[in-house]
Amino acid sequence: MIDKLVSDIKKKNAPIVVGLDPTLNLIPNFIKEKNFKAYGETLEGIAQAVIEYNKGLTDAIADLVPAVKPQIAMYEQFGIPGLVAFKETVDYCKSKGLTVIGDIKRGDIGSTSEAYARGHLSGVTVNGKKLKAFDEDFVTVNPYLGIDGIKPFLDVCREEKKGIFVLVKTSNPSSGEFQDRVCDGKPVYELVAEKVREWGEDLCGESYSYVGAVVGATYPEMGAALRKVMPKSYILVPGYGAQGGTAKDLKPFFNEDGLGAIVNSSRGIIGAYKQEKYARFTEEGYADAARAAVIDMKNDINGIF
Amino acid sequence: MIDKLVSDIKKKNAPIVVGLDPTLNLIPNFIKEKNFKAYGETLEGIAQAVIEYNKGLTDAIADLVPAVKPQIAMYEQFGIPGLVAFKETVDYCKSKGLTVIGDIKRGDIGSTSEAYARGHLSGVTVNGKKLKAFDEDFVTVNPYLGIDGIKPFLDVCREEKKGIFVLVKTSNPSSGEFQDRVCDGKPVYELVAEKVREWGEDLCGESYSYVGAVVGATYPEMGAALRKVMPKSYILVPGYGAQGGTAKDLKPFFNEDGLGAIVNSSRGIIGAYKQEKYARFTEEGYADAARAAVIDMKNDINGIF
Repeated sequence: MIDKLVSDIKKKNAPIVVGLDPTLNLIPNFIKEKNFKAYGETLEGIAQAVIEYNKGLTDAIADLVPAVKPQIAMYEQFGIPGLVAFKETVDYCKSKGLTVIGDIKRGDIGSTSEAYARGHLSGVTVNGKKLKAFDEDFVTVNPYLGIDGIKPFLDVCREEKKGIFVLVKTSNPSSGEFQDRVCDGKPVYELVAEKVREWGEDLCGESYSYVGAVVGATYPEMGAALRKVMPKSYILVPGYGAQGGTAKDLKPFFNEDGLGAIVNSSRGIIGAYKQEKYARFTEEGYADAARAAVIDMKNDINGIF
Repeated sequence: MIDKLVSDIKKKNAPIVVGLDPTLNLIPNFIKEKNFKAYGETLEGIAQAVIEYNKGLTDAIADLVPAVKPQIAMYEQFGIPGLVAFKETVDYCKSKGLTVIGDIKRGDIGSTSEAYARGHLSGVTVNGKKLKAFDEDFVTVNPYLGIDGIKPFLDVCREEKKGIFVLVKTSNPSSGEFQDRVCDGKPVYELVAEKVREWGEDLCGESYSYVGAVVGATYPEMGAALRKVMPKSYILVPGYGAQGGTAKDLKPFFNEDGLGAIVNSSRGIIGAYKQEKYARFTEEGYADAARAAVIDMKNDINGIF
């Protein structure tokens, strides 16, 4: 999948992933009202609104970007119907040729991480038959439990030719509380990055490894240092736009070849219709507003090279 | 909920939580066959088998233990039907008076952690109406993202009088890879434990805080040190039994009053019927075997005081 992702980034000239994080506040009222009317003010009603909203967004941006990143928490909060909407979103985006990065941030001890890896990347085998639960192309993974928690994901990635992005340095203000602590002369995030490089060494695609990293746009200096520590890892960069990262902050995350990073924007795209700048589209035109915001983001990012 | 948990631990004289982690391998064949016949060799068939297995276990142990801990990965691997089984298990156990600790190990940036906290502990509010997704009493939380990722859980715990267990030192062999790194003279797990104490300071029940910690039975010396760092935090102790922790390793996790720790066993209880020691119960008697294993575990642990 890393080869498809890199190839699509080049083809579409867009190192961009759109975060499909449908909060209640972002879903246009007309979609909510319609689905509440049909399904009641219930989790089912919300979930159906989420599906409609996501499909509209996906149709509007699928030719422009290589990938989407649904954040599972935003679906899990709506319970079983919400998780059905997550699954439908993943499957719909894949049917449109998009690479899907499941932002699940799972991580546990060995056998439990294996369950997560099988549940999201491969499927469980029952009497020789493979049954698929969720079916993303990549997932994000939390490294706090060490290699035991990562290895099952690596094994599944090898089997399925899929990939992971390991949390190295997250975009939030308090990410430094533990991640920046200096141990043996190096911050924890750098120790994790060294492991990411090591874990990816025998899991390599044409030019990049199956094992990527998450590093927030809000920390460009660390991005520069980490780029060097993990030259073969794709960096998934959250924090652009709504969280405060700007295009000029992004340069250090890329390699000399203009590859090696993919920048996420969620609210800035899927909620574009709420911004002054795109207000002309109105609520009904939320998908066209998202498309316009993607084009602007593409120009903004490509301007740094 | 911490007060109910402590009170039930005293009443039942059992600082024990049973891990309801239904792998395919542990579910008795007669249950799998029956449900595969009714629902096909599908995720639905597995999920129905999980529900039947869990209900049998719960009925057999509910009067003996204060709490259960379903590991959500073991359900999530079976997709939507698996998550329905998770929800039914949580609800069934609560209807039997048990405290339910959702072993979800979630953790993300602020707004995303809030979605997880609402999804598992409180519910989302739509037009003034609260809709519940999952409804555990406690959940486990990953601290790698720092206070931003924890605060939303604390806020929801305050509202709902529920609680969390923060991963401090996990039971797996490679937990030391990042958790044991020494920063400013202290290992990372101790820095996390200091935060656990701080986070719990204004969230206190009668004798213990709403903010507990996970510390593996496989590291008793660290347990002793951590017990002192977080005197008001309940410690959830995995790793007893199948993972290698013994009763004598557990003593340091408890306070002088014999409280302050709750020990988890999963396979050792729910798969007891597979052990030589409980083979007399046969597969059909898996629930009675689990009951016998709980009684033995109770005697084993109470023997240390």
